[in-house]
This record gives sequence, structure tokens and C-alpha cells, in this order.
Amino acid sequence: MRASTVGQVVESNNPDYAVGEFVNGMFGWQEFAISDGKPGMMGRLNKVPPGIPPQLTLSALGGTGLTAYFGMLDIGEPVAGDVVVVSGAAGATGSVAGQIARIKGASKVVGIAGGDRKCRWLTEELGFDAAIDYKSEDVMARLREECPQGINVFFDNVGGQILDDALLNMAQFGRIVLCGGISAYNSQELPPGPKNYMQLVIRRCKMQGFILIDYFDRAGEAMAELSSWIEDGSLQHAEDIQEGFENTPKTFLRLFTGQNMGKQLLKIAEPTT
Amino acid sequence: MRASTVGQVVESNNPDYAVGEFVNGMFGWQEFAISDGKPGMMGRLNKVPPGIPPQLTLSALGGTGLTAYFGMLDIGEPVAGDVVVVSGAAGATGSVAGQIARIKGASKVVGIAGGDRKCRWLTEELGFDAAIDYKSEDVMARLREECPQGINVFFDNVGGQILDDALLNMAQFGRIVLCGGISAYNSQELPPGPKNYMQLVIRRCKMQGFILIDYFDRAGEAMAELSSWIEDGSLQHAEDIQEGFENTPKTFLRLFTGQNMGKQLLKIAEPTT
Repeated sequence: MRASTVGQVVESNNPDYAVGEFVNGMFGWQEFAISDGKPGMMGRLNKVPPGIPPQLTLSALGGTGLTAYFGMLDIGEPVAGDVVVVSGAAGATGSVAGQIARIKGASKVVGIAGGDRKCRWLTEELGFDAAIDYKSEDVMARLREECPQGINVFFDNVGGQILDDALLNMAQFGRIVLCGGISAYNSQELPPGPKNYMQLVIRRCKMQGFILIDYFDRAGEAMAELSSWIEDGSLQHAEDIQEGFENTPKTFLRLFTGQNMGKQLLKIAEPTT
Repeated sequence: MRASTVGQVVESNNPDYAVGEFVNGMFGWQEFAISDGKPGMMGRLNKVPPGIPPQLTLSALGGTGLTAYFGMLDIGEPVAGDVVVVSGAAGATGSVAGQIARIKGASKVVGIAGGDRKCRWLTEELGFDAAIDYKSEDVMARLREECPQGINVFFDNVGGQILDDALLNMAQFGRIVLCGGISAYNSQELPPGPKNYMQLVIRRCKMQGFILIDYFDRAGEAMAELSSWIEDGSLQHAEDIQEGFENTPKTFLRLFTGQNMGKQLLKIAEPTT
């Protein structure tokens, strides 16, 4: 099973890697991995930069953080004063995406998440201006209330009814960033698409998808900016860390029940240093 | 009832307009109209330029021609070598949109239309490379056959199943121009949306709507270029002209039964000159 991982060198025949160093790579669901030490994205070995907590290279400085960065900035193109809404806002990608919009001068950032605990986290810890609890609130009514002038950027991780609700609340020339559609990932059959898609015409909006691998040549730029925001305190990050290799499948499934807040991680072993 | 119209001045108290001149405006379903003579878009009076057949200001040089122009070029952004597919291709907008793509260097232009007569018109008269008859052919299979490398630009006037079929055949970084969705205009209830919309993520595509009124300040540029293509023979235009004021509703309904080929017009009276 493929998975992004961060680990510690326990044995090395390669002078470039010392025992005890932290490295990042796509090493999957296993306790130990062997590498030829060649650096690069997608399964290659990358040293964790000094001063960076290793788990950050899996969250705000990892795939989900970079996805939030390029999706929000390159596809969403928020400008100062924009109203930005993020679904799956308490997830690893959504939580970073919303904060990036705020850093870039959005006049209002609204997060949609499931449950009071997540919603309070968004507004009290992450600086979201408002949060909508899709489990207990009427998302359509709340979007109307929070975004009376319409949504300029909708960053969607969820799809389904929430995307349809957002479509009916877009501002003219708005941008919908299609990042994911987790509401449908486990459907046996493809559910109906967004019935309100013709709002894209009426309101002259674009809806655009993207995949992180197309931005690998700009990963350095993104990591530098994300790191600077983490350092100056403007970007909060959170990891939801479960423990024990035997809990790997169970931990993976937390994504689909919405239990995780921030990046879902699993700790297999304690670092030795 | 609102409608774009072209007519002839039959009486004038305004020195800027002589009896017999042709003028264009949004004068609706009526036999005569009165104007203060102020020029401009959306209901104002515009002189038909000398040398231009009056009906052209309602078709290739009118709203549908300009819609094709800005939709294809500004939203579709075809580049040399692109594979371009147009739905509703025998309509006023689609027929011009496809030809513009060919003029701009598309390697292949495929039109989707209903019936053999329309399909033959596209390939034999308008220079489309291929036509798909959605009434008698399997659109999905034919798109796969005609566009084995995928569709770079899909210009959609139709929506429904045809949009879903196109979504499954997009090339990476393709553009879907949402111009219309006539398949659903007469539905009592909003039909399901495009269930394959997550292809926008998988293939990193954008789907974008637009409305002509946003481009009015560039209408002159478009009309100049469209006119030059008509003059040099690279852009064919067609008008489907019905006759008799009493046939106005019946003529309008031809759009929804797909009877028209090219721009649907209704002639109320013969010009006097």
C-alpha cells in the first residue's frame, strides 16, 4: 500500500546519509524501507531540512500543504478582499488552504466542516472568520448568510450537495478549485453530478481541477513560503497522530468518517534521537 | 418578447438616419419599433455597415457569432494542433465556433449534431473534419474514435449526456467552454449534473462559463475579424429564415426541436430597397 512516510535512518552504507537522520519518501505501509538514496519526488528519498519537525514534511510542508498552496494560489487566484469558502476545511489540505487565503488578504474565509469541535478549531485556532457545520446546519442558508455578496473562491474537497450549494452562491467571475470529492469516493456507483453547474455560465465562473504532480518543479518555492508562514506564526498546522502499525487500516478509514482534524498520520515507532 | 432584430428605417425625424437605411437593435417580437436613435449595445440602434447583408448582423456578425468568437478564443484558447469538439455544431453559435477553431489552426474539428443532413453540412460545407450524429450514433464511442488523444477544447451548447461523454474524453489540461445547455432548458425539474465532473481533476481541466455582455467593449474587434474571414471565404455562415410575423412562436420553438441549421431567423417584411 502506497503512503507518504517520514522516517529515521537506522542503517546506512551511503556516505550521504548518516544513521539518525530524518528522511521523507513514499515508502508505504511498512515498518522498514530500503532506498538507494537517490533524491526526488514520488518515492525518492529527501532529507528533512534541519530545524523542521519531521512530521511537518507530511502535513503543511508535505503533499497536502503543497496541494493547498498551488490549488489556492494558482487555481483559486484569491485577491485582496475576496470571500473564500473551503469545504473539508478541518482536513489537512482544507485547513492550510483557508489560512493561505487569509494570509493573501481575503476579506473573509469561511470553512465548512463536520461537527462543533472542528468548527470551533477553525475559528478559534486557525483564524477562519466563520465555520459552517454541515452536520447540524443548513449549508445553503448559512452560505447565503455568511457570503451575501457571493463567493469569489470556493476550494472544494468534498463534492456532492456542498458543491451544489456553493454553485448557487458564487459571485460573478468566481473560481471553483476542484481539489477532491471525498463525499463520493466510497460510492458503489457514480453519484449524480452538480446539478447547478449552469451557474458557471450565469455567473461567469470557472471550475478547474489540478493535481500536485504538475507542480513538482515549483515545490521548493512553495515549501519556502509555507515554512516562512509557519515560522512567523501566520500558518497553523495540525497533525492527528494515531499509533501502532497494526492500526494502519483503521487510521486510513478515519479520513472517511471525518474523525481526523488536520493531517491524519500514524506513528509506527519513536525516533531514537 | 425580447429579440434581436434588423430592420429598415421607414420614417425618420432624426438627421442621422435616412429612410431606407438598415439598422440593428433589440426590438423584440413586433412589426414596427420606435427608437431615439442612440447607438450602443442591448436595445440601442446600430447602423448596418455598408456592404454587409443585413441578416448577417443577426448571425455570424451578431450575438451568436460574437458568442462563438469570445467563447472559443477567450475561454477555449485553442492553439495550433488542438483537437476541438463542438456540440450543437449546426446551430448559429456552434457552426461559427467550430470554424473559428479551424481558422486558428486546430488539427481536428469535430461537430456533434442531430441528423444526417446537419452532419453532412458540417463536413461538406463548413470544413469540419468529422461529425457525430447524436441521434443515430454512440457519441462516447465516436468521440473515442475521432479523438484518440483526447479533446483539447470542448465547446458545449447542449449539456446532459453529451457533456458527460465529452468529460470522459478530455485531454490533460483541456478546456470546456460552457456556452449553453439546451438539452435541459425545457426540463420541468433541474436534471442531474455531469456525473463525470471529477474528470476535471484527473485530467486537470477547466470548465468555464461566460456571457457575451461582458465582451461588449471588444465587439468591434470581433466583428472586424469575423468580417475579414467571411470576406476571404474562410468562414461560412448560414441563416435558416422562416417567414411571417404570425409564425414567430412556431419559429422560436424550432430551436428546441433542432430543426434549424445555422441561425434561426424570421422575416417579417421584405426590404423596400
